[in-house]
Amino acid sequence: MAEDAKLVAQQVLEAQPFSRLLGTRLTRWDAEGITLELDVRADLLQQHGFVHGGVLCYLADNAVTFAAGQVLGTGVLTASVNLHYLRPAKGDLVIARAATQANTSGRAVATVEIYAATGGEEYLCAAGSGTVSAIRAAGAPRG
Amino acid sequence: MAEDAKLVAQQVLEAQPFSRLLGTRLTRWDAEGITLELDVRADLLQQHGFVHGGVLCYLADNAVTFAAGQVLGTGVLTASVNLHYLRPAKGDLVIARAATQANTSGRAVATVEIYAATGGEEYLCAAGSGTVSAIRAAGAPRG
Amino acid sequence: MAEDAKLVAQQVLEAQPFSRLLGTRLTRWDAEGITLELDVRADLLQQHGFVHGGVLCYLADNAVTFAAGQVLGTGVLTASVNLHYLRPAKGDLVIARAATQANTSGRAVATVEIYAATGGEEYLCAAGSGTVSAIRAAGAPRG
Amino acid sequence: MAEDAKLVAQQVLEAQPFSRLLGTRLTRWDAEGITLELDVRADLLQQHGFVHGGVLCYLADNAVTFAAGQVLGTGVLTASVNLHYLRPAKGDLVIARAATQANTSGRAVATVEIYAATGGEEYLCAAGSGTVSAIRAAGAPRG
Repeated sequence: MAEDAKLVAQQVLEAQPFSRLLGTRLTRWDAEGITLELDVRADLLQQHGFVHGGVLCYLADNAVTFAAGQVLGTGVLTASVNLHYLRPAKGDLVIARAATQANTSGRAVATVEIYAATGGEEYLCAAGSGTVSAIRAAGAPRG
Repeated sequence: MAEDAKLVAQQVLEAQPFSRLLGTRLTRWDAEGITLELDVRADLLQQHGFVHGGVLCYLADNAVTFAAGQVLGTGVLTASVNLHYLRPAKGDLVIARAATQANTSGRAVATVEIYAATGGEEYLCAAGSGTVSAIRAAGAPRG
Repeated sequence: MAEDAKLVAQQVLEAQPFSRLLGTRLTRWDAEGITLELDVRADLLQQHGFVHGGVLCYLADNAVTFAAGQVLGTGVLTASVNLHYLRPAKGDLVIARAATQANTSGRAVATVEIYAATGGEEYLCAAGSGTVSAIRAAGAPRG
Repeated sequence: MAEDAKLVAQQVLEAQPFSRLLGTRLTRWDAEGITLELDVRADLLQQHGFVHGGVLCYLADNAVTFAAGQVLGTGVLTASVNLHYLRPAKGDLVIARAATQANTSGRAVATVEIYAATGGEEYLCAAGSGTVSAIRAAGAPRG
């Protein structure tokens, strides 16, 4: 069941041209939350050689949406995202871990932490959260 | 003077590999704030054909940083960004307009609105803000 | 008309027991936005003698809601608020100025700046924003 | 040790006149985070009989600050708070549970969930987060 849901999530990610452009992978989907990963490439950097904040922000947006999808299903709309940058991101890999913080009547709040890693050694770069709403089918009751 | 500052800002943007990958342009820099623009391309979309929220989030991050740079100078560090998605973004062009909302002792809050446009017709897609800190040179007084 | 809307807003504020406890006044309601004011009292402070951040946060919450009410009407629900504390608040008076930043199909984003004043001399203490939704009457069309 | 830190935290809370006005209690301080509680009173409500959003926002602000204090110590400055209102708060008691989400070099991000309870039955009302910085003593190294 969780395996099926993970496969669906991977297909959704694969169906996002922007996520393919950046090379995002969904590497975890379980009761603890979800993980997205991205290999750091030269064209994802900013002017000082760190991963561009916009890449982290994209990861945060996508990670909170997938995490919320664990409780809301695939028909969701991201309503907001916020991210606090704690340290510049440098390394081979950027990792975003997200999980649902709160969930009520078709709306979820998910938190996300972003790490940079070099050779398996990780450090925290950013933390934030997002709000996600379930889309109701036409005719379905609204909460 | 403002022309010089705009040129410096354009050079900073040009020095960001990720901004070149996405094709971001700085099209306005004046007393009212700054504008970033991006041509919509197939590889910037999500699975339903709208511009990926992560692209808007990247634009918000970059736009608030440049807007804050108008009052803080070029040596800045973005501390946080938040974005509220109001409508899916579809069109030829995405436009982010940002301006400083508040500014005190080396820290600024800037707001940003993001529009999608088709043939010059614009509509609002997202609104948010960010906080940016000035980096002090070693030995310089801290506010 | 604006005078009528201002009176309604003042009645709403007066109907909030918590706003009466704190002594909040609506002092401006016009095309530029709205202003809430609060006299600083000993029981509104924190442990270092500054106005408690929670008082500023309350003001931000209420100010963005009233500002959004200018475009959405009186039947609104505040969905979120965020506030960045820039300087400790000290003085005779705390002033929150809010205005709509963005507005679309029953949802508005409003920004707020909070100032502390002593003898008419103001300084900026905090800046933030909030999102507010219109409540639709049963049977009314949804945007 | 944790007992000592809890006592210090309770003294800080007791030293906040605004927290005494509202009647806030620190009821938990352990490895899982902290809890603040507030008895609902008539003068804490808004115009529809629910607990005023500003009360929840105050609780969020205070709860994230205390939670961050668990990792940063007592000399802290709250930099920002955000709160998503999920359901109106009605009941005898309002409960804010907060914990550190991320922590790095003198800066912490803490999350907070707010519940309303009647006779021991709780439901989730709001969720958010905040950023908190450690204040360094004069002459102390800055991270």
